[in-house]
Formats: sequence, structure tokens, C-alpha cells
Amino acid sequence: MASSEQKPDVASTPKQIRASVLHGVKDLRIESRSLFPPSPTELQVAVRTTGLCGSDLHYYNHYRNGDICCKEPMSLGHESAGVVVAVGSDVKNFAVGDKVALEVGLPCEQCERCKEGRYNICKGMNFRSSAKAFPHAQGTLQDRINHPASWCHKLPQDVSLDLGAILEPLGVAIHASRRANLNTGSSVLVFGAGAVGLLVAAMAKISGASNVVIADIDQGRVDFAVENKFAHQGFTVPLKRGSSIEENLEIAKETAAAVGKVKKESGEEVGELDAVFECTGVPSCVQAAIYATRPGGKVLLIGMGTPIQTLPISAAALKEVDIIGVFRYANTYPTGVEVVSKKGPDYPDFSKMITHRFKGLESAEKAFGMAGKTKDADGKLVIKVLLETGDEEDKANL
Amino acid sequence: MASSEQKPDVASTPKQIRASVLHGVKDLRIESRSLFPPSPTELQVAVRTTGLCGSDLHYYNHYRNGDICCKEPMSLGHESAGVVVAVGSDVKNFAVGDKVALEVGLPCEQCERCKEGRYNICKGMNFRSSAKAFPHAQGTLQDRINHPASWCHKLPQDVSLDLGAILEPLGVAIHASRRANLNTGSSVLVFGAGAVGLLVAAMAKISGASNVVIADIDQGRVDFAVENKFAHQGFTVPLKRGSSIEENLEIAKETAAAVGKVKKESGEEVGELDAVFECTGVPSCVQAAIYATRPGGKVLLIGMGTPIQTLPISAAALKEVDIIGVFRYANTYPTGVEVVSKKGPDYPDFSKMITHRFKGLESAEKAFGMAGKTKDADGKLVIKVLLETGDEEDKANL
Amino acid sequence: MASSEQKPDVASTPKQIRASVLHGVKDLRIESRSLFPPSPTELQVAVRTTGLCGSDLHYYNHYRNGDICCKEPMSLGHESAGVVVAVGSDVKNFAVGDKVALEVGLPCEQCERCKEGRYNICKGMNFRSSAKAFPHAQGTLQDRINHPASWCHKLPQDVSLDLGAILEPLGVAIHASRRANLNTGSSVLVFGAGAVGLLVAAMAKISGASNVVIADIDQGRVDFAVENKFAHQGFTVPLKRGSSIEENLEIAKETAAAVGKVKKESGEEVGELDAVFECTGVPSCVQAAIYATRPGGKVLLIGMGTPIQTLPISAAALKEVDIIGVFRYANTYPTGVEVVSKKGPDYPDFSKMITHRFKGLESAEKAFGMAGKTKDADGKLVIKVLLETGDEEDKANL
Amino acid sequence: MASSEQKPDVASTPKQIRASVLHGVKDLRIESRSLFPPSPTELQVAVRTTGLCGSDLHYYNHYRNGDICCKEPMSLGHESAGVVVAVGSDVKNFAVGDKVALEVGLPCEQCERCKEGRYNICKGMNFRSSAKAFPHAQGTLQDRINHPASWCHKLPQDVSLDLGAILEPLGVAIHASRRANLNTGSSVLVFGAGAVGLLVAAMAKISGASNVVIADIDQGRVDFAVENKFAHQGFTVPLKRGSSIEENLEIAKETAAAVGKVKKESGEEVGELDAVFECTGVPSCVQAAIYATRPGGKVLLIGMGTPIQTLPISAAALKEVDIIGVFRYANTYPTGVEVVSKKGPDYPDFSKMITHRFKGLESAEKAFGMAGKTKDADGKLVIKVLLETGDEEDKANL
Repeated sequence: MASSEQKPDVASTPKQIRASVLHGVKDLRIESRSLFPPSPTELQVAVRTTGLCGSDLHYYNHYRNGDICCKEPMSLGHESAGVVVAVGSDVKNFAVGDKVALEVGLPCEQCERCKEGRYNICKGMNFRSSAKAFPHAQGTLQDRINHPASWCHKLPQDVSLDLGAILEPLGVAIHASRRANLNTGSSVLVFGAGAVGLLVAAMAKISGASNVVIADIDQGRVDFAVENKFAHQGFTVPLKRGSSIEENLEIAKETAAAVGKVKKESGEEVGELDAVFECTGVPSCVQAAIYATRPGGKVLLIGMGTPIQTLPISAAALKEVDIIGVFRYANTYPTGVEVVSKKGPDYPDFSKMITHRFKGLESAEKAFGMAGKTKDADGKLVIKVLLETGDEEDKANL
Repeated sequence: MASSEQKPDVASTPKQIRASVLHGVKDLRIESRSLFPPSPTELQVAVRTTGLCGSDLHYYNHYRNGDICCKEPMSLGHESAGVVVAVGSDVKNFAVGDKVALEVGLPCEQCERCKEGRYNICKGMNFRSSAKAFPHAQGTLQDRINHPASWCHKLPQDVSLDLGAILEPLGVAIHASRRANLNTGSSVLVFGAGAVGLLVAAMAKISGASNVVIADIDQGRVDFAVENKFAHQGFTVPLKRGSSIEENLEIAKETAAAVGKVKKESGEEVGELDAVFECTGVPSCVQAAIYATRPGGKVLLIGMGTPIQTLPISAAALKEVDIIGVFRYANTYPTGVEVVSKKGPDYPDFSKMITHRFKGLESAEKAFGMAGKTKDADGKLVIKVLLETGDEEDKANL
Repeated sequence: MASSEQKPDVASTPKQIRASVLHGVKDLRIESRSLFPPSPTELQVAVRTTGLCGSDLHYYNHYRNGDICCKEPMSLGHESAGVVVAVGSDVKNFAVGDKVALEVGLPCEQCERCKEGRYNICKGMNFRSSAKAFPHAQGTLQDRINHPASWCHKLPQDVSLDLGAILEPLGVAIHASRRANLNTGSSVLVFGAGAVGLLVAAMAKISGASNVVIADIDQGRVDFAVENKFAHQGFTVPLKRGSSIEENLEIAKETAAAVGKVKKESGEEVGELDAVFECTGVPSCVQAAIYATRPGGKVLLIGMGTPIQTLPISAAALKEVDIIGVFRYANTYPTGVEVVSKKGPDYPDFSKMITHRFKGLESAEKAFGMAGKTKDADGKLVIKVLLETGDEEDKANL
Repeated sequence: MASSEQKPDVASTPKQIRASVLHGVKDLRIESRSLFPPSPTELQVAVRTTGLCGSDLHYYNHYRNGDICCKEPMSLGHESAGVVVAVGSDVKNFAVGDKVALEVGLPCEQCERCKEGRYNICKGMNFRSSAKAFPHAQGTLQDRINHPASWCHKLPQDVSLDLGAILEPLGVAIHASRRANLNTGSSVLVFGAGAVGLLVAAMAKISGASNVVIADIDQGRVDFAVENKFAHQGFTVPLKRGSSIEENLEIAKETAAAVGKVKKESGEEVGELDAVFECTGVPSCVQAAIYATRPGGKVLLIGMGTPIQTLPISAAALKEVDIIGVFRYANTYPTGVEVVSKKGPDYPDFSKMITHRFKGLESAEKAFGMAGKTKDADGKLVIKVLLETGDEEDKANL
């Protein structure tokens, strides 16, 4: 990422902006940054909405995410939308005032994976608010940001910036849905009714799956999913744990069998599933997913969880249930814009996912506090926490 | 098709049933047939509803269909559903009283195409009410029929037999939709708002296409499609004809450009299409389809029309617009049952397609008369004409 | 399988034939069976060559195969070719004297999987010499057998029956190769240089993989593979075992890294692999397969081994390395016939795989004894043991 | 293409190089150009070998190519390889002295097609020696050229620059082969035994097609193809022309039938083809291709020919023979390098394709003269004409 943050045009004068920067465990500071005008191929975007993601929360709580440690202070945030405030000299098709969603992963664009269209698994990927590459690509929790125009996606005027921010996790769901290669009329199961699980269920439904069952240990989340049209049916997973791998596998088989008894709208049982989207990363769910899937079906691994798992691998292989990884997304934003542009009585209500919102970079700590909970003090579900940003001058002018 | 019509079990006694049989141009006769009990692998089905198809109408009007001539008297009808009245000794999973839709194409089940799952293009296919194979496989316009259980598809109790009959043309639409390999969020165009065009549009919509434009020369058909939720948008094709191929291609380009200006719900133009489903067989539509499709998109040839056409083939090749044939269907009925089992305020109302219905085999001529019109005497659109059959005794007993 | 063994034509007279029948652990008996003429859709085949497979050996040694126990005496053998000795009345395209390979899995031909061409994962599959279904479908270790003509595959006159017998395990390799969806020019690794591993390597090579590395713990097997043109390069896996899962995963990573250093013909290192075909079922190989595969590549699970394995599943998911099961085969025989019909200086010499052969049903015990060894008394590798069968009268007449 | 030709680094001094520039019909001039050092992301390459392509020849003869007219003087040449003489400051993985093949199509890298990996159909493509975009991207017939490093492909040391130049037309063949999605063991037909036809046949063969038949009107070309291992079998197309479209279609049917009688190595007839690669652009061949292809097979349109054709389109649609365009290539060079790195007694001898070579930019006219012939003065076939370039100083230093 040869960004204009490092290499300003000589003639241009930087603007001072404010950024929320993580310096250590739960050590968020608001700092001033110099932001040069956008390079010829960039846009300068006033960031307005950023959804908080599980990986942001991990960095906030641990200054690391799994094995990946921060090596320098880093702004968090990567589910973002905003308004264009300046346009690089070579950029076409964008104008000041356009609403845009940011696709924040910046791949190398030169390797075989990039050139064949699978840039999500590019080894040179530099993803904002991830500490994997160095220097880290700074996240979106700042007033403004310069970003390559080719990774900005224009939003129709009647699509809210909130929905623009949702395009990022929706990208995961779109990518998963494509990798599942579902036929219209399919029956699918989604393990986990958090933000990603809800979006995955919604995409399966929109893509023509006839029976989308969502499963969670929390009845409230399941109800939320069905009431807001993210899924057709729900299933509440009982909390059981065996004392050995054999016992656990037996429990997983029981769960699979129980899911199969969920009723379709026609009154029939769903039976075996064409695909199971695993959004929890919990081994018992992956195991149940393998058992619940029909011969020739697919298990999609979406949830980041236990990295090493003990699985009934022969049970999968003997029925040719393929185990398919889903890592982020590629080429999903144009589809996502179409998806969030639609509405209808049976259509998932994506805006309902934003259960909590906070204003200003100063509220970042409160927002992360809330994002770490499953329910708020009033007992309301916490699905997606949004942080509104942008300085007042910008807002007044646009 | 080693059917029980020819090879009865020795012990069994045939039943006399009535059939509508075509003996020549517009020469339909009601005849009595001996029907033996079903063979071990067959069901005996009391046929209740049969939709009339364009190919039936061709046989009725010409005693042939294109190059294929009748070589013996033949019952017409292949879009049918009914009720099981007897079950072969080896058949599992069916019981007397079950509602079933008949999949009337009987492939050889032995060739490479059959074994790889593409039985629709089996060279040994014997399709009811088609005169291609000899002896002809008799159509469904008869009181009862013996049919292999493996080609009968059970309907949920709350799905009407009318919708069961629609599963046959819906199969074409499902097959076309699969061959198009659409991404969710796609923009597509359907040329032709007859029964197949409506179903093709509906399937694209149900499968996640965001912008389904249906085009026809008749404004009424276009309105019908949009009002009944088969398509998102409509386009009325003006009737223009050039005096040379060059002029015609210019007109086709204009049509393509005009379709691109149709507005999405978001107010933007649909622009180039990801796929065009050609359901008319008219060269000017195929030409326009090629011009209207984006690089890397697909033109699906569904309409049976002019067999030899002059096409801008380089225009297709240079943008890698693939020209994909769609011939009948394979493996579509289970999906079709799911599709017609659903309902909703934005969902296509399939039952509306049945604009005219007639009762009894005796009404077959009237039914064919109506099927040959585009509007009835009252000016109402003719989309799908249905013939209800079945003797009264059967009906009383079931 | 409504075979003529159970339901003879009334007019026909059975012939007495000899069969090798397993009655218990290592309890093979030669028995006389009544064989009726073939039913209208069957061929009667004089079995001439049968290759012994690992599953046969398991039944021989344990009267069971994993969880699947014999419930009645059963003939073993399913890798077979022979000569047609009688033709059912409805069968076309076959004549007495034709050489045929038998495809011995008899699927239900009615379920969705069968109809879509994935009959290998049909739940109703009845596979000869497998005890899964009951009554068991008898294996091919008998003088003659009646078999559905549609599951017999004619061999060109200049293809030996030995190669005909190899079509069965070759089917697994062809199926694996298809599921891998390799590009020409790919680099692949095959774990295990037994019969299946050799064939898998050969198919990858024939299908255009540029760099096929075969790995085994036995240097002799690796050399055999490379010398006989089954693979381009070889790799000998050192025997190392850790004392914890973490240590084992470290060893698997080392193995993956070491394989990457194998040289291509151009002198460059093969690096990460596009696909790894795992033919051992050993967890350490599956683990190494995951580490050795490039982002977006595939691990194919072919070897039947440890049913429950502890795997670095996140390492696979994060780079979208899909874990693909391979269970038997579907639609592979026509391809197999083409493959074994070819020869050339750089072409795999399939006949070399048959390292040991025995004559007559009486030699079955000796043959199984040999099949259980990795090397014979002279130190020669045991790859594939073949049993020649057929009574002398038959042979004299054909 | 923001090339360093237009935007030099201030500090750098341009070098004077010589270029062959087309100013009008057959008006090639050698001119001096200023070449700045490569930009940070470019390589400077001393061009050594350039194959002449049909499109080059069209520009040379007509100062246009079909509808595309030159709007300014333009260097021809796009099948090129050379040696790196300077490396941009940000480029990794390349060093002075590396042999490279140039991929000369420079796509926009920002549109949906580019991002999904189908950059060959990018609307913003700027392809060297094509006059479609303006300013034209200059071709490779010059001493040195600056080219983006990400579109340069390193050659192994033992691969000749001649073979490097062949990677460009080979890319078309690789792309066609991928789009055909052939199974190993397939039977295919290639119409046209020119350079592209030979390469297409070779790729089908290398990718595992068992029976590759190449057809041409010239017996000598057919023999060349078979002798040099580009195809398994040959077929000489008789020159017949009907006086009506119906007669022509009959002739096409006869050709298809005659091809089906070509014998495989096993002595059997090849019958219907799994795919036909049409490399002539002649309507009679496209028509024959449709008739010759089996149900479910594919016709690949590779040859640029008659833009508007009269085709038996129903014959294709009714058997679901898909008509697939092939336009240039995407992501083929890494595969191509693997392909030309291999050798063997049965392997296509790619170097034999270079039948004529000329030295120095001054010889360009002679080279184009030869490229326009099918046979030279000695009656030797003209397949690929190569022009060697590069100044002597460069050659001495590398």
C-alpha cells in the first residue's frame, strides 16, 4: 500500500485529522494525524460509520489477535462507510459528496491469486486494522482516510451509511454463499446467530435456499433471526458436553439428528442438509455439521475458533461432504450493494442488526465495552455496535 | 420404456380407461384403453390436471412438431399431476392417495449422459406425447396412467395439483437458471412473457437475481409479469424489422441499448446484463440478447424457434458471451416442489398463470382452441390452459 | 439388485459354477452355485481376472471391514474383467466373446444422487464383496457371474483383461483427479505409493499436472513409481513421531516444507502444492497435506484410515484449502478404458503394477496371503496381486 | 497504462533506442525513441524475439485490423521475450539478466472483470500493438521496452527465448483448453492447423485428451501436426461449397460424419466429439463443429473470421452444445512456462513451429512478407515467423 500518508505530493498541504489509536491493551488514545491530499488514484473519505468486529475487540482487549501481535500503535475499525471529500487526479466515476463503502483489504494485485480473482487469499494482503503486515494498515476509526478509489464502492443515494458499513461482514456471507454453490430450493443450517451467522443465513435465503435453519445456544438470538426474516426456522442448541471425544461425537450426532427434525413450512422435516455454515468455530458444531450434511453436501468453515480440532473426518470423506474454508471475501461489494438496496415484507431487515450505536471517536471505549457483551444492561441483545465518527465541520459542509 | 401397457402381469386383469387420442390434424378421439395394474416398479396414477404446452398444440394442429411426425395415434399432454391409485409391488415411499407430479421423460438410464446426470440429452429418451421415439410414449390426456415410480414426485398435501402440473414447464426454468450459473444480485433479461418466460423470470428472481427485466411485444403480458411478481421490471419491445441483415442487427443493437436504460428499483439503469434468457426463438431477440449481455455473461437459448439463424457471432465471442442451449430439464422436480410450496407478498403467484381451465377429456378440442390464442374473447390474456381429467368414480373414491 | 441369481426365468436351466466363498475369518471355501441364464438386461460373464483390494483383505482377515460385519457367507473380489458368455434378451451392443470390465457397484438408480450422476454416494448402493447391504452382493471370485449389462464396460480387443481389472482402482484415481479440478501445469503431491497412490499419481500426470511428487515411507515404492513413469519425482517420508499433538504438527510442518524443496525438472523447487492426494489415511500425512497445500488448493482424502483425526483445521480454512472426500467413483470406466488403451515411453506402465499373480479359485488363500505383505520372500515389492479364474471348458470355447 | 515513456523520473536520463514503427499501409520505418529508465514498478527489457501474429499482419497490410483503425503510428509485435536490463525501484523478484516473456495486455485492474480474474475481457484493456485504445500501446518491435513487472514472466534458464515468445499464442490455447473443461480421455477436434490450431491441439493433448484430431484443408499442415506430436490424428477437409445455405449445411453434416470415422489408436472410430476447437473463423467449419459435437459437448470459437454467420443454432441448443467464445487469455503464463519447460518423445515439439526467422528490425518487412505466405519459395510450410531484435551492445553486455 503505497499510501499518500507516507508519500505526499510536494505541492500539497496536509490537513490535521483526529484518529483513535490503540497503544496497548485497552489503551485507546485520540491523536492528531497529518493527512495529505489523496494521491492520483485515491479518494479522501470522511468516515462516518464503523461497525465493530470481533477481531477489533480482540485487539482492543489483548493488543493482539490470536497469534498476530501489534508491532506499532494501530487504529482499529474496518467495517466502514463515509462520504468522499476529495478525489485523486486520475480517479474517474467518483465525485465529492458520494457515499462510499470502504473495502479495506489491500491485496498485492500481482500474485497468481490476485490475478485469478481470489485476492482474499493473497499472501501480500494488507488489511486495515490487522497487524499481520508491517507497517500495519491503519483502521478506519479516524475522521478521514485516504483509500484507493478502486477499493471504494459507491452507494446509491437511498442506501444509508449504516448499511454501507454492513457490506463488510456481508461480504463474508456472500463469499460463503458462493463457495457453498447452493441450488435454489436447498435446505441449509447456520450454526451461530451472531452478526456473521445472521448475514450468512440471510444470504442463503436471498440466494434461493428454501429452508434456512439458524441454530444458537441462545433462544433470543434464534428468535431475533427468525422474526427479522434472516432465517426461515430456528433451532436452539442445548448445552451438553461429554467427557470424552467419543461421547462428544455422540452428542454431535444427536444434535444433527435433532436439527433434521425441524419442520419446513410445508410441515415436512428438513432432514439432512445440503450445506451447513459453521459460524462459531466451536468443535462440537463442526462435528455436528459433518453429521448433519447430506452425501455430496458441504460444510463451510466460517467461524474463527479452535485452531486444532478433533473431527470425524472419515464420516465426511465417505459421504463426500467437502469441508470448505471461507476466509474474508473477494468481489462481493457490488453484490452487497444490490442486496442492501432491496426491501420487502419477507426480506431480511439488515438495519435491525445495528442494536447499539455510539457517537464520536471519544466513545470508542464505551463502544468496545458494549461490543464485548451479548446483552446490554436492559437485557437487549447486542448484535452489531456502530461508532459514528466525522468532525462537525465536515458534516456541515456535506 | 418396458411399460406395463405392453407387458401385463399374467395374474392381473386390465381396467378399461378413457384416453384422448390424436389421429391426425385436429382429429382428437376419445377411446377406451385397457390398463393393466402397474408393474412392480410403477405407480398407477389417476391424472387430474394437464397443462397444454406449445408442442402439444403443434401436434394437434399439424400431427407433427417441426421435423417430428406422428407415426401412430398418440395421446397428448405432458404437464400433469394426479393421485396415486395403485402401487407396484416393489415400490417404496408411495401410497394410494398420494398426490404426485409426473416427470414424463423416460431416459434410457444406461448411456453416459444418463449416468452423469444429464438425462435430458439422452439419445434414447422416450418422452410422453413426443413422436420422436417409436412406439410413441403416450401422453397424459387419459384417465389413468402407469408410470415408473422413480419418475413420480410426491407433492406436499397443501400443494395443489394445478401447481403440480406447472412443475413441468417450471423444470425448464429451473434448468435454465442453473445453466446460467447466476450470482446473487445479478441483472437479467428474459425475452418472451409466455408461460416459459414467466417461469424463467420467476426462477431468476427466486434464485437471487436483483433485477429481472421481462420483455415482450405485448404490453399486457409485461404488465401481467410485473404485477404478479414474476419479474421486477418490464420492457415492451417495439415491432421493427429491417430490410437487410445489417439493418436488423442495427435494430437489435438499439433494442439492447434501450433495455439497458430500464431502471432498477434504486433508480439506476440496469446497463449490460449478466444473462439474457431467450424464450421466443425469434432471431431478432437472439441478436439483441448477444448485444445486451455484458462481457463474460451468458445467453440462454430456451425458445424453440427459427432453427437456422444469422447471428453476430463474433460480437459474442469477442466478449466471451457464451451461448448456452437449454433443452428440457434434468433433476429439477425436487427443487420445483420446494419452489411452488412457498408463498409470500413478493413471491411469484404461480397459480395466476392458469388463466383458463376446461373439464373432461371431451373438452380437449376447446382447450386446444384456447391454447392457440393469445387473448380470449373477453380480451383476457391466455397464458396457461389447463385440462381437468379423471373419471368421477375415481374422484369419489379418493 | 434384482439379480437373476434369485429370480430365474422359468424356462431356463441353471448351470453349476464354482465360487470362492468366505465363511469366517480366513475361512474360504470353494462351493458350487446354480447360475441361471442372464435376465433380459444382464450379461453372463466368465470372470478371468480379479485384483485383490485392501477391503477384500480386511474381510478375509476379520470377516468384517471396519464397522461393517458379514452377515452371511460372501464371495470376495470386485476388481474384475472377463469374457461375455451369454447375453440377456434386451441387451444391445454386447456379443458373446466380448471382453468386459465389471463395474461392481449397483446403485439404486432412483435417488437424487443417482439421478444427478453422483451414484457413488447413493445410500442404496449395493457393492459386490461389500457386506454393507443385505443380502450382500456377491463378489467376483467365481467362475461366472450375471451382471447388469449397463454396468459392464467393453474393452478394445488389444487391451488385456489384466488392465481391465485395474479399471476399478483406476476409477478411484480418475474420480479423485476430477474432484481435484487441476489445471494443466499443476504441481501435486501424492501421499502413499501403494496401488491407489500409484494410480492417482498416474492420473494427475496424464491429466496434465507438470510436477507429480509421490511420497512414501518406503524408498523402494517411491523408486518404483518414478521408474515406471507413475510420477515425475519422489520423496521418502522419514518416520518421526512426536509425543504430543503440537509436536506432531511441527513434524507435519517440517515434512510439508521438505516436500516443497523437491526439484522440478527445470531445477526449481516445487514449493507449495496445488493439490495433495492423501492415499494413506494416516493423520500425520493429512496434517502435512494441509500445510503443504497452497492457498486456494485442495486436499483430497482418498485413503481409508483413522476415522477420527486431530487436524489443524484453521490452517486449512484461513488459506481456503478445501478438504475434499473421495469415495469410490462414478462415471469413470469410459475414461479408464481410454487411459489404459494408451502406451508410450513416458506413459505410466500400468501392467507393471501387477507384481504377483495366482491361478485358480483354489489359490485364493495364497493370493490373500501375498496381498497382505509389502514385499515377497524374494524382497520384491507387492503392489497388486491378481487371481486368474475361469473353468477350462469356458476358456477352451472362447 | 501510466508508462514511464510519458512520465519520466526527473532525475533520470533517457536512452535512445530504435523502434520499428508502422506509419501506414506497408509503411514500416525505423525510428529513434527516447526511453526513460523504468518507473518504480516496471522492468526495462531488451526485446530479443518476437513472433509475428495474424493481427500484426493485418495492421501491416491495411493499417487497420477489421474495424479497428490506427490513429497514430504504432510499433507492431506482441509475442515477445527478452532479457531484463533495468529493474524499477519497487520491483522484487527480478534481476538484470533474467529472461522474461512479456504479457503485453495491460488491463485496467479496477473493473469487476479484472478483479474476478477475467481481465482478458476488461473493457479498459490496452494491448500492445492493438489500435483499439488511444494512445495505442506500442508493440514490442523495438530494441528495449519498459513494461510493468507484474506482467513480465520469468523463464527458467534452460527455456529458450524462442519458446518464451510462443507463450503468447500458447496463452490462447491454454485459455481455450480451460474453457473447454475437458475430462481426461476426451476426444476433440481442432479445425485449422495454423499456429493457434497447433497449440490448441497440443494443449488438449497435454491436458489429457486421448484423441486429438486436427483438421485442415492442407494435407501438409495436418501431417506436420501429427509428425511433431501436436495431435494424435489428422483429417484433411475437402474443399466443397454449396450454392445455398441448406446445401452448405448438408456439406457441414457430411464433414462432421467423416470426422467421426477417423480411427483412434485402438482402431475404433472417434465418433462424436466432446469438444471442437474452431480456429479458422470459417462458417462451414463452425457449422461442422456444431454437428460433430456430442450432446452436452462444447464448441469453442477461437478463430477470428466472418463476424456474422448463419448457423444451425437449434441443432446446438437441442443437444445442449454450448458455443463458447475464447478471446485472448488470462492467467495463462505460469501454466505456459510449465508447458514449454517439458520435453519428451511423445511431447509436442514447440520449437518446430518456428519455421522462419529473420534478424534485426530492418528485416521486419521481409518477415511480414513471409508471414503472409502459407509456404515459402522452397515449398516449406510457413507456421510461425520470428523476428530477432536487440542492439549489439546489449547483447554483448548480457
